[in-house]
Amino acid sequence: MNLILLTRNDVDDAGLARVRDPRRLAHLRQVHRARQGDVMTLGLENGPLGRGQLVSLTDDEACFDVSGLDQAPPAALPVHLVLALPRPRMLARSIEHATALGVKRITLLHSRRVEKSYWQSPELDPAKIHQHLVLGLEQARDTALPVVNTARGFRPFVEDRLPSLLEGRRGLLAHPGMANACPRGLTEPVTLLVGPEGGFIEWEVEQMLAAGCEGIHLGERILRVETAVTALLSRLF
Amino acid sequence: MNLILLTRNDVDDAGLARVRDPRRLAHLRQVHRARQGDVMTLGLENGPLGRGQLVSLTDDEACFDVSGLDQAPPAALPVHLVLALPRPRMLARSIEHATALGVKRITLLHSRRVEKSYWQSPELDPAKIHQHLVLGLEQARDTALPVVNTARGFRPFVEDRLPSLLEGRRGLLAHPGMANACPRGLTEPVTLLVGPEGGFIEWEVEQMLAAGCEGIHLGERILRVETAVTALLSRLF
Repeated sequence: MNLILLTRNDVDDAGLARVRDPRRLAHLRQVHRARQGDVMTLGLENGPLGRGQLVSLTDDEACFDVSGLDQAPPAALPVHLVLALPRPRMLARSIEHATALGVKRITLLHSRRVEKSYWQSPELDPAKIHQHLVLGLEQARDTALPVVNTARGFRPFVEDRLPSLLEGRRGLLAHPGMANACPRGLTEPVTLLVGPEGGFIEWEVEQMLAAGCEGIHLGERILRVETAVTALLSRLF
Repeated sequence: MNLILLTRNDVDDAGLARVRDPRRLAHLRQVHRARQGDVMTLGLENGPLGRGQLVSLTDDEACFDVSGLDQAPPAALPVHLVLALPRPRMLARSIEHATALGVKRITLLHSRRVEKSYWQSPELDPAKIHQHLVLGLEQARDTALPVVNTARGFRPFVEDRLPSLLEGRRGLLAHPGMANACPRGLTEPVTLLVGPEGGFIEWEVEQMLAAGCEGIHLGERILRVETAVTALLSRLF
């Protein structure tokens, strides 16, 4: 944790935030070796960040002074990431990488080569997803919580949701063998679509290109989803 | 495995390669659902790759015809990666990411904020490192095995080895707060130095800059080592 992320619910009227959950308390003690009086980097979920004092620390509560938080979080990436649902452990890491890199909108998509059992994984539980988002924010010293939703049918996604995701945004479909190399250093809004292990099937590629996406590739190497997501985001922006 | 990687030792004089280790045999059966007669993507370690037939498959041996392999592996990245030794699980993943992206030379470096216990990890066993290199090659359809070595003292590394690593190569030190943003789309040879969790200490940064490295940063977000390595390589090349 490069930042202690606090929620509005943690904060009382006097500008004090009380942390009581075991994960953050254990991390404060073991990694930060925090002691009463320490000044640490704190952030309010979807709010400002800055330096604040650990006013008190007991066995079951850490109390922070958050009255002085006045910095804006780092800039977000102008991207909506549409990711074919990866297998559970890959999903967790991909969400953490993408969040740390500044992605604020993620849609998890079904496609032919996504194993149906992945949709039953406990990793898709909103509380688990929230946990990975928080880890990504704490890593990158960010406070703006990404929004994650799902699209459990490929055809309804392409027909009903993709057109609005492409309004005012450049749609980029990352897929091996596409004609153009991944562009670099973009500043415009992008909707980035990334396939599953094994890739989108030909029909799916055709549907997304027909909807207005441009096909892009990262070269002849085939990358794991989590490597590809980080490599694409880092090269695009 | 997007490629079955075979060693020279696997190959006999008749151009047949025999695979007997349980990992590859299990993967052939369970993931590839391989059957006698199948034509698959094969590669010879540090040699060519291409399509070849699975001539026979028994409980304890798969035999491939490698006489037709005639393609060169994908281009390597012109980079020597010097990585402060990450904690063991992060090391394994960082090596796989870097190998899949095309890095061919990796030096694992000690620095002040590397926990000394990491040097005792079984993950540093050459056989374990080799395993992660092979996984990275199989993922990316590459055959050229990276060379990994260690530098267990920071000062001897900077004084004795870094100068020759910078001969004819641009030295780039990735560190938060450096003056210049990470450059994009380089084609010249680079030596890229990446610090541990918590970063290089100020004295170490000064030593590397004095040796001729340029400091670069990836923005105000603090990334995990494995995310940073992929993000740097993807943006640089």
